[in-house]
Amino acid sequence: MSRPVRTEIVQPDGRRVYLYGDFAPAPVGYQAPSMPTGVYQRRWNPLRREWVLVAASRQGRTFLPERVDCPLCPSRPGHATEIPASRFEAAVFENRFPSMVPARPAGGSCEVVVYTDEHEGSFATLSASRLTRLAEVWTDRYRELTARRGVRYVFIFENRGEQVGVTLHHPHGQIYAYPFVPPVAAIELRRSGGCLLCQLIDDERKGRRRVLIDHGGVIAYVPGYARWAYEVHVATRTHRPALTALTPAARRALLAYDRLFDVPMPYMMVMHQAATGQPAAQAHLHVEFYPILRDRGKLKYLAGSESGAGVFINDTLAEESADRLRAALE
Amino acid sequence: MSRPVRTEIVQPDGRRVYLYGDFAPAPVGYQAPSMPTGVYQRRWNPLRREWVLVAASRQGRTFLPERVDCPLCPSRPGHATEIPASRFEAAVFENRFPSMVPARPAGGSCEVVVYTDEHEGSFATLSASRLTRLAEVWTDRYRELTARRGVRYVFIFENRGEQVGVTLHHPHGQIYAYPFVPPVAAIELRRSGGCLLCQLIDDERKGRRRVLIDHGGVIAYVPGYARWAYEVHVATRTHRPALTALTPAARRALLAYDRLFDVPMPYMMVMHQAATGQPAAQAHLHVEFYPILRDRGKLKYLAGSESGAGVFINDTLAEESADRLRAALE
Repeated sequence: MSRPVRTEIVQPDGRRVYLYGDFAPAPVGYQAPSMPTGVYQRRWNPLRREWVLVAASRQGRTFLPERVDCPLCPSRPGHATEIPASRFEAAVFENRFPSMVPARPAGGSCEVVVYTDEHEGSFATLSASRLTRLAEVWTDRYRELTARRGVRYVFIFENRGEQVGVTLHHPHGQIYAYPFVPPVAAIELRRSGGCLLCQLIDDERKGRRRVLIDHGGVIAYVPGYARWAYEVHVATRTHRPALTALTPAARRALLAYDRLFDVPMPYMMVMHQAATGQPAAQAHLHVEFYPILRDRGKLKYLAGSESGAGVFINDTLAEESADRLRAALE
Repeated sequence: MSRPVRTEIVQPDGRRVYLYGDFAPAPVGYQAPSMPTGVYQRRWNPLRREWVLVAASRQGRTFLPERVDCPLCPSRPGHATEIPASRFEAAVFENRFPSMVPARPAGGSCEVVVYTDEHEGSFATLSASRLTRLAEVWTDRYRELTARRGVRYVFIFENRGEQVGVTLHHPHGQIYAYPFVPPVAAIELRRSGGCLLCQLIDDERKGRRRVLIDHGGVIAYVPGYARWAYEVHVATRTHRPALTALTPAARRALLAYDRLFDVPMPYMMVMHQAATGQPAAQAHLHVEFYPILRDRGKLKYLAGSESGAGVFINDTLAEESADRLRAALE
């Protein structure tokens, strides 16, 4: 598979920026913003048996700037952004306020994926060619980061909406390259025997009750065991361990389903796929959407039961949520 | 150990109310509110290997009513509340909008603990005698629910503040009696060898750096591996598996530490102790506080990394948080 055209720029503070496809150079006099000094650690929680990332320099990070101050827009004379270009298709850069840094002891990396150089819009309003480009970008980053020494799991995600804590409105997502397999992935991937997701997808297709779309080799459904009122899983119908195992057409099809959420709904999008060096039989690429509203204007809170016991309470029946989502899609 | 004086009342819809200590009867003509019809299920999430509680009748639950409509205040002529008494010390009732019901298939119970009949105030403003009463109430509920058939884990907790999703301001907490051992408890309690918490407490006492209070057989500290900026754990210094193993004085001492959070800070309080029938050596009673602010006016959001990967990011160093909390306590 050929790599997309990519230009790599190293900023004065050592952070890398990747410009994908066509771009125009930064204006004369561009001065890159630089990373503040910070403390990065990972600490083991022996009670919950999990790593916690400590990043004690993020408290001062950019918080909902005015549109003219957007750090993800192209740079222009008098306004140097994170992107050393005055026009671009898609860009990836190492986060200036990361949760972990490549050096030990935190030992990971945090990248920001800028979907487009246009400030307005969202994932769902991207043109077909930009969507194809983004699919290439994610695949490229997954391939490269998974191969990087010390990286155990590459996690592609997007937080959308101020109620999920988004601090920048310019359309973007993130990639964390963890130096360990995170707990959720570890549980999902810890299997023997056949692929569980293949079986779950078979069951959903047979039942049909919770299926939203089943077309072009990709299926979207509300899982019966959803934690969130309008949780939707999107997966390839056949077994594919990761983005790198998809044809460009299948990749586009997968991404197109993100348009399901072309509503002003705060959500998280998370992509689950194979860990570094994992046998292909054990992982099945899928995307999970967690919209955080439980009803119009009502947020689902993660309170005592969710945070202190690990038990989610869903106020809706997955079957009824699927009905409502199908009606909204028509 | 003697049981506290308790009066049990069964409401017309079958829900039980327990009035602890002294009380005055409900006004003439009291009509109890009744539980709406609902669907309660527990569903197994095979990907995350966890139970999800589905409770599809809660969407219409009481949401931040006016003070005069408070359902946790004593009943008065013309205003029937959840409490069939016109004055009381402390009360417990089965939630009218539960996450699970005793009958299968959800198979658990949800109780509301009303700390006092006074609408204003909080845990921290309770008088010493009310605090003693509350310690008795929790111990009584833990003892009784743990012995109930089908209950595997009794979880005492409090959500405080609208930002945690609290829908009623009257001082109260909750108790969930789960028909399974929830994931967080399962991980904490799955040990062989000596008590891990005994060892962690020893380490904190030796290091001293993160200890807030160490007095009266109870220790309060910011754990080094905190997920939340101002997370505090409070535990008995000696090994005690559950509330029932404490003397009344130790119980009072444990509760008094909740006054640490006598600030208008939204938080969750969760109590971890022995599961049903668990050997005393495996569990060590402790209370965890999760204040959800990471800085003045700034909420910590659970976004992609926390929800989709299970990796928490803490923007603060536990040692510095301990310094700030100690300064606030002086």
